[in-house]
Formats: sequence, structure tokens, C-alpha cells
Amino acid sequence: MSTIARAMTTKFRLALVQLLVSPVKSENLSRARRLIKEAAGQGAKIVALPECFNSPYGTNYFPEYAEQIPGESSQVLSEVAKECGVYLIGGSIPEDDGGKLYNTCAVFGPDGNLLLKHRKIHLFDIDVPGKIRFQESETLSPGSTFSTFDTRCQLLVYPGAFNMTTGPAHWELLQRGRAVDNQVYVATASPARDDKASYTAWGHSTVVSPWGDVVAKAGSEETIVYADIDLQYLTEVRQQIPIHTQKRHDLYSVSAVQER
Amino acid sequence: MSTIARAMTTKFRLALVQLLVSPVKSENLSRARRLIKEAAGQGAKIVALPECFNSPYGTNYFPEYAEQIPGESSQVLSEVAKECGVYLIGGSIPEDDGGKLYNTCAVFGPDGNLLLKHRKIHLFDIDVPGKIRFQESETLSPGSTFSTFDTRCQLLVYPGAFNMTTGPAHWELLQRGRAVDNQVYVATASPARDDKASYTAWGHSTVVSPWGDVVAKAGSEETIVYADIDLQYLTEVRQQIPIHTQKRHDLYSVSAVQER
Repeated sequence: MSTIARAMTTKFRLALVQLLVSPVKSENLSRARRLIKEAAGQGAKIVALPECFNSPYGTNYFPEYAEQIPGESSQVLSEVAKECGVYLIGGSIPEDDGGKLYNTCAVFGPDGNLLLKHRKIHLFDIDVPGKIRFQESETLSPGSTFSTFDTRCQLLVYPGAFNMTTGPAHWELLQRGRAVDNQVYVATASPARDDKASYTAWGHSTVVSPWGDVVAKAGSEETIVYADIDLQYLTEVRQQIPIHTQKRHDLYSVSAVQER
Repeated sequence: MSTIARAMTTKFRLALVQLLVSPVKSENLSRARRLIKEAAGQGAKIVALPECFNSPYGTNYFPEYAEQIPGESSQVLSEVAKECGVYLIGGSIPEDDGGKLYNTCAVFGPDGNLLLKHRKIHLFDIDVPGKIRFQESETLSPGSTFSTFDTRCQLLVYPGAFNMTTGPAHWELLQRGRAVDNQVYVATASPARDDKASYTAWGHSTVVSPWGDVVAKAGSEETIVYADIDLQYLTEVRQQIPIHTQKRHDLYSVSAVQER
């Protein structure tokens, strides 16, 4: 999952809610609401929830827990975003749209309005013999749009549920790589680890600086990760190693394909 | 610097020569020759030298040490590649072409033939106040071609001279990132560290697997790093997490710009 927020001011507080997800949807929603309020009370202006925060993560669970957007879960998110006056990146929930299921992130503004709905584009399929087999594509459909929204800041946010195989191998590496490649802050929000769940999330929600340093990182338990994002520092890093102005547009091209 | 070698068989030995570079070109060439022979004696089929292996790395040195290709240094590389029957990725040397200077990698086949000449495309410019200022672009011109050659294997090779600022921050991160993003082996060849040099190289020549694991890594001193590259393992990793078949060519495009 990825959501890009664009720039306006130079400093703000970000919070990542590493929620312990249970099989009871109403409980997940009330816990999320409580932790979002706590984060706002600590000065967070942007709050992010984990991937699949309202239900257990699993292909067998997606059809059972899926709901429409707007719907029960997004209604709660809208209310709490407005109540707290924060930008709320609603992790993701299984979305049902006319019988098709998506892994969808809804983002709400401080006025409670829905800013965007991002459906996961690259579904997570893995088959490491003896370790883990999991195929989102068995029950989910992929989205087909990129998602950005305008706010006071500029960063990449990835709600994600890595596991005990990909977590230690790739979780921190990928976000530090994206941060340095693009010289931006990168934040990831994971569910807390539940060793009794059928899919055990890695946890370790993290914030990485544009230089690639880990500036905040959770353990595996339920918690809130805070980071003060400094966009002046981002500007300095881009001046120190000017990879953006060195792009060779005469040699290569990275582009979005136009809709036909 | 990057050079891509394409696939044919499934296993082979790679050697990275972490040369201690001196201000005496003839000495650098003879040490390189000796270490390449040693690597071939240990069964290496592909040998890579570091960036700027025949002369000190510095904008003031580039004009003084620059030479043509073919020329003195490439002649030595051609001879030793043929003598040892190895593919030789000649790190890089300052190249003089009609008064323009380039940071150029010459690659030789086991028959001693020049397979390609790669001129560094993105020059290294850095200015971190209080730590390091270095601007290749003050004396070098950038190249404008991508470089691949066919051999028995498939990997990304980066001769590179990171420093005491970017080394600890980015050296291993970037190569592990490239390995996982592309699910390929990645190898980097650095000069050995010389604390008395005006530019102090980080060292730590490294080989990373397609899963992102560091499979071999030097310290900072002159040495040869060996790794047995297993292309069957690469195939397995690509099956385990099939990111290549999940590319959304309907949504985005990464392409080389056609020459006009």
C-alpha cells in the first residue's frame, strides 16, 4: 500500500498506530478510535493505521469482513478524523464493491471528508516452501489508480502487514531503500504481532529519514510511533546529494501510462 | 557505475578485487594483474576491479592520470583477461577522449577482446557541510549509454568508491535495495581504504543475493572477495515472490529513451 502526501509547511508530527487486531470488528474500530485520539492528544497532525486494521488478515477472512466504502468502518474513521482535526490514513480494510473485493485504504481530512480511496495495486503473493504460502490474489482484485492527497507535508506512507519471513528480511530494507532512492521520509504502519493469528504480522512500524536513517521504530507490541517530520532537512539532503537534478531524462523515462 | 551481465549457466564463481590504490599507476596495474591471477587461480570466472583502480580518486588527479581506451591500462587488462581466461570488469579509470574526461569501465572477455566501454552516467556530486565536498562534474563529463554484455551469468556489478560519509550510511543499503527490487545478485567492488588519501574509500566490497542477504563482504583492507553465484536460487526467489509477473504495465512504464 502506498499513499503520497504533498508539501506545504516544514515541520509536523506524524503518528503510526500499531494496532493489535482481533477477530471482533467492533473492538478493532473502538481500539483504533481510542489510539487515534491519544495520538492527536500528543500533537500528531497525520495519523496512519495499519494494513487490514479492522479484521484479521487472511484470504478466508476477507469475504467475511469486507464492507463498502462508505460503510461502518469508514464512518468511524471519518468521525474520529473530524473530532481530532487530523489527516487520517485509514490503513486498509477489505472492501466489497459489487462482489469484487479489494484491499483498500481510505484517507480522511481534518473536516472528516473522504480525500481518497486507494486500492492495493500489487497484491501480495508469496510461496516460500516450508515457511509461508499466502496469495491475496486468490480472493482480492487489484486496484488500478495511483493515490496522492494534498496536506501540509511530503512523505510516503505504507500501511503494511509483513510476516515472520519477509519481516526480518525485507521490511526495514525496503523502506530505507525507498527513502534514499527518493530522498523523502518514509513511514510504515504494521499491525501489532499476534503469535496466535493464522498470519503473524512482523510489527515494527517505522519512520525513515530522507538520508535513510531510522528515526522511530516500534517493537512488535501494540503501540503508537511518533516522529517529527522536518521538511527543511529533506530539502538539505536533496541539496547535499543532488540526484533529482541529475536525472537523465534524455536516457530513460519513468511514467504513468495514460488512461485510454 | 553499473554493468549488467546476462544469463547462460546456473553456477559460477565471482571475485571482487579490493585493490589498495597508490599514486603510482604502474604499481596499481601490476598489483591488479597479480590479484586477478590469484582470483582466477581460485576458480573465479568473472573478476571485477574497483572504481578508479589505476589512480587516486580525486578531481585534481583525473586530468593527470587520464588515458585513452585502448591505452596503457586497458592493454594490461586485455592481456590478463586472456591469460587467465576470465571475464574482467575493469572497475574504472579516468578516460581522455579528445580532451573530454570520463569515468570509464572497460570490460574484457576471456579472449582478451574489449566487450564494452561504460562511461559513468550519473556523476558523483556531494556537499555535506562539515563532512565532505566532492564534485566529479567539475572535471568529468557524463556518459550517455547503458552497458550490458553477455556471459554465463546474470548479475549487477557496481565498481564504486563510496567514502567515510556515504559508506556507512548508504553503501550496503543501496546494493541490498537493488538486489531485492530486481531479485538479482548484486556485487560491488571498492578500492581498499587508505586513511592517508585525500578521498578515503569505504572499502567493504560486497555480494548480495536476490533475497537481499549479504553473502560475502570485505573489511576495509586490500583483499579479494569471492562468491559462488547460484542462478537456480535466483529463479527460486523469483517464483517465491513473483513481483516480475505482477508488474502493471497498464499503469506505469520504465523505459530507455530512443536515440533520435
